[in-house]
Amino acid sequence: MKPAVEVFDLALPRPSLSDQRSDERRLREALRDRLGASPAIPLSLLRELPERLRAWDFSVRVLVGRREEAPEVLEVRPPGDESPILGLGIDLGSTGVALYLVDFAARKVLKRTSFRNPQIPYGEDILTRLHRAARPEGLEELRRVTLEGLRREIVRFVGEENLSRLYYYAFCGNTTMTHFFLGLPTRWLYREPYIPAANWVDTLKLREAELPGHPEGLLFVFPSGGSYFGGDLIAGLLYVGLHRGEGLSLFVDVGTNAEIVLGNREFLLACAGAAGPALEGGVLSCGMQAREGAIEGVRIRNGRVELRTIGGGPPAGICGSGTIELLAELFLAGLVNPQGIFQPDRLPDRFREIRGEKAFVLAGEEETAHGRPVYVTQGEIKNLIRSKGAMYTMLRVICESIGVTFDDIENFYVAGSFGTHIDPEAAITIGMLPDLPREKFRAVGNAAGEGTVRFLLQGDFEEVREILSRLTYLEMNVENRFMQLLTGALFLPHTDLSLFPSVREKLRSSHA
Amino acid sequence: MKPAVEVFDLALPRPSLSDQRSDERRLREALRDRLGASPAIPLSLLRELPERLRAWDFSVRVLVGRREEAPEVLEVRPPGDESPILGLGIDLGSTGVALYLVDFAARKVLKRTSFRNPQIPYGEDILTRLHRAARPEGLEELRRVTLEGLRREIVRFVGEENLSRLYYYAFCGNTTMTHFFLGLPTRWLYREPYIPAANWVDTLKLREAELPGHPEGLLFVFPSGGSYFGGDLIAGLLYVGLHRGEGLSLFVDVGTNAEIVLGNREFLLACAGAAGPALEGGVLSCGMQAREGAIEGVRIRNGRVELRTIGGGPPAGICGSGTIELLAELFLAGLVNPQGIFQPDRLPDRFREIRGEKAFVLAGEEETAHGRPVYVTQGEIKNLIRSKGAMYTMLRVICESIGVTFDDIENFYVAGSFGTHIDPEAAITIGMLPDLPREKFRAVGNAAGEGTVRFLLQGDFEEVREILSRLTYLEMNVENRFMQLLTGALFLPHTDLSLFPSVREKLRSSHA
Repeated sequence: MKPAVEVFDLALPRPSLSDQRSDERRLREALRDRLGASPAIPLSLLRELPERLRAWDFSVRVLVGRREEAPEVLEVRPPGDESPILGLGIDLGSTGVALYLVDFAARKVLKRTSFRNPQIPYGEDILTRLHRAARPEGLEELRRVTLEGLRREIVRFVGEENLSRLYYYAFCGNTTMTHFFLGLPTRWLYREPYIPAANWVDTLKLREAELPGHPEGLLFVFPSGGSYFGGDLIAGLLYVGLHRGEGLSLFVDVGTNAEIVLGNREFLLACAGAAGPALEGGVLSCGMQAREGAIEGVRIRNGRVELRTIGGGPPAGICGSGTIELLAELFLAGLVNPQGIFQPDRLPDRFREIRGEKAFVLAGEEETAHGRPVYVTQGEIKNLIRSKGAMYTMLRVICESIGVTFDDIENFYVAGSFGTHIDPEAAITIGMLPDLPREKFRAVGNAAGEGTVRFLLQGDFEEVREILSRLTYLEMNVENRFMQLLTGALFLPHTDLSLFPSVREKLRSSHA
Repeated sequence: MKPAVEVFDLALPRPSLSDQRSDERRLREALRDRLGASPAIPLSLLRELPERLRAWDFSVRVLVGRREEAPEVLEVRPPGDESPILGLGIDLGSTGVALYLVDFAARKVLKRTSFRNPQIPYGEDILTRLHRAARPEGLEELRRVTLEGLRREIVRFVGEENLSRLYYYAFCGNTTMTHFFLGLPTRWLYREPYIPAANWVDTLKLREAELPGHPEGLLFVFPSGGSYFGGDLIAGLLYVGLHRGEGLSLFVDVGTNAEIVLGNREFLLACAGAAGPALEGGVLSCGMQAREGAIEGVRIRNGRVELRTIGGGPPAGICGSGTIELLAELFLAGLVNPQGIFQPDRLPDRFREIRGEKAFVLAGEEETAHGRPVYVTQGEIKNLIRSKGAMYTMLRVICESIGVTFDDIENFYVAGSFGTHIDPEAAITIGMLPDLPREKFRAVGNAAGEGTVRFLLQGDFEEVREILSRLTYLEMNVENRFMQLLTGALFLPHTDLSLFPSVREKLRSSHA
């Protein structure tokens, strides 16, 4: 598989009276031999080509970008040119946005960053934003604010001086985010029968998408499978590769929505549900994205609370993966009971009344980066348990639907868009993930974002199309079985402890 | 073969919970079934698609344009929509420009027009313009003046109100004209080894080419075979179809340059030379393009000069085809001798001294549209004879080069970009074309311009590519044989009258 931008060093035959091919044809034929396909060449480049070829004596470094129908020449540089050849991956989550700067020559990610979705002032949740978009000029407003935010952060992240070296973007987002980003109408997306404007958008020029970069740069938008599974899921699947595996695998992506895919190289069955929000840092009152200062790890031992923050400095909040560890540790330490009720007696110093609600304080005001306490409330714990219970139940229902059990699963990929890597141990402890041998779990971080990187460095359209066409959707809302199974999962880890033997073992030793 | 813009009336399946395909996919799949290929769909259209599909209850008329790699949806209209679906053919000659307005629904040309090339103020001949283009900003200046002239004439010709219905342009011009039009550098085109910037330019959006029309409209530029045979020749060949014929055919295009192609479905051999200028109306002092007031036919009988003008009104000048008839009639009437020298005695009233030179007056100041006489000078007659002699000689050399004689030619296509249809009878009389049975001749008018129409209405890329790849070029300048044979052809019709038996016969009866 080939990168989205390929680099060719060519020594073209020099023109003569016996070889009067035009500069265009000379270049195109040399590339056709290397690419196995005749590339498109933009007019802007043809205008420069004669002078460049002669300045460099017909030896050139040519950058070719991938498009659906034919590859396209993006730039012609001097031979041995060392200027960077950059690509950008964008994962536009409804809460946070992740950017990945890719170096095509070195075939690696140079750096990553993330920031809050600039749409948030237009509505915390997606539905509010969809309503906003339904107002006159509302869609254009959301598109503009999204693009302006992206542009600002991209310029900062990539650096003004490197913008013209940005040749290729790969973008993913859920279906609504993708629609906002491209200015596609969302009006029919959230009305029965829930029809997106587009599943597949043909590769665009950056200038059409109004994004900074090289004048001929390209943008690939991961396709949306439907209103409930978006390009981010496709990107995540491209990254983890369920569709390439022989054995049965599960893929769980905990973002604002929780998405689950069960499958292998023969089929991909997906379901999604509102299991995610409370598991994602952004929804807790002290939640934050996985950046400097976010608590990503929690240990409670012998009455001591140990925190691990990103960057190692004082804490400023807690991210998604930290939240799961926190709940597991509170449970193992007996500070919440299986129903999720705080048990303050064991560590009274850590409990406070905050805005009329009982809260567990992870870090007091004197310990934090901003001088405010970092805590989790009783209500938030209940929400977390509802979310984890829904997640576990969806996993059971999707397996049952094809007549397999958790034991049949060979690989279990756990992605979380805005935590660091989710710790399966903690997730099992709270009964969010099934109690399987730990070596089956792969914590893959932001799989959607990594999927954009994979597309840039080695993906291709065919593989994306294959995933898209193979995915089928299991509608969880119409499954009575979901409601039947959910009740037992609203406990830590579950009413039926025999489903979680390793947790039962842990509880025995910790309470011993 | 299909038109460049195809029209499909589709009744798309309505969305439902059991068919949640996006609007894009719904449209694309329906078109794929009809086109046999998956079309590209521009973003601007995807933004409109959901509202339009629902406004028209999923019945739509879809316009699809041809591109190299995949067809592209250009517009989605209401079912049964009767608004015009227009295309424009442009033949940018170095002297004159011809426009053709095509109706894709009716599959016909609605109207034609022509006007002077707006570059002429930058130089009468191409070389002057090339030198101009070599100055700093000179190329951009020529591009701008070309485009501004074209835009102005197109708006006038098509009508402001119809511009948004212009979906497809087909453009042809010689290689220099094509370069100026697209802003491609010409610096290496007229320096040995004469290398164009491009042979084939990928289909462009009208907006890239800065041309008026539908926002997603497309422009096809006929490819240039080399610096000496341009897209106009390719277009002309597409029209007359040498490459489709079994028997051997000759194609002669008399423009600013004379171009000759000999061939059939197996090969195409081309040569070109400066045979044209004097044959083209524009170069005579009273020459003009083939528009209202141009003399296109001349008869001299019993001392009376009868003129036929385009439009039937008073004459304003003489066009290319008129010039050839004039010379033939002067010769048959004995008013010029075989050396091309005026013989005023036979019709002294018609001869005058104009600017120190002997001239034959076709129309006196009182008879013309502008109150100035229309005439041809002795020097111009000599130029005409040099041109026709060169033409005839090229025809002989190209036939000899593959070992055939004129008798082996089955079809003889005579095109003239800026006359009306050239009369083969007259052209044979002056010894410009060989004396073959008249039924072999096809006067095809502006074949290049008609080629753009053919591309719009029924051409395709493959056929154009085939012509381009099959053409080989015979360099006339390096053929000694040309100079050997030319001498005899500098007479009317030729020193060897046995080559022109029908002319000899005519001379006998006219001098009788």
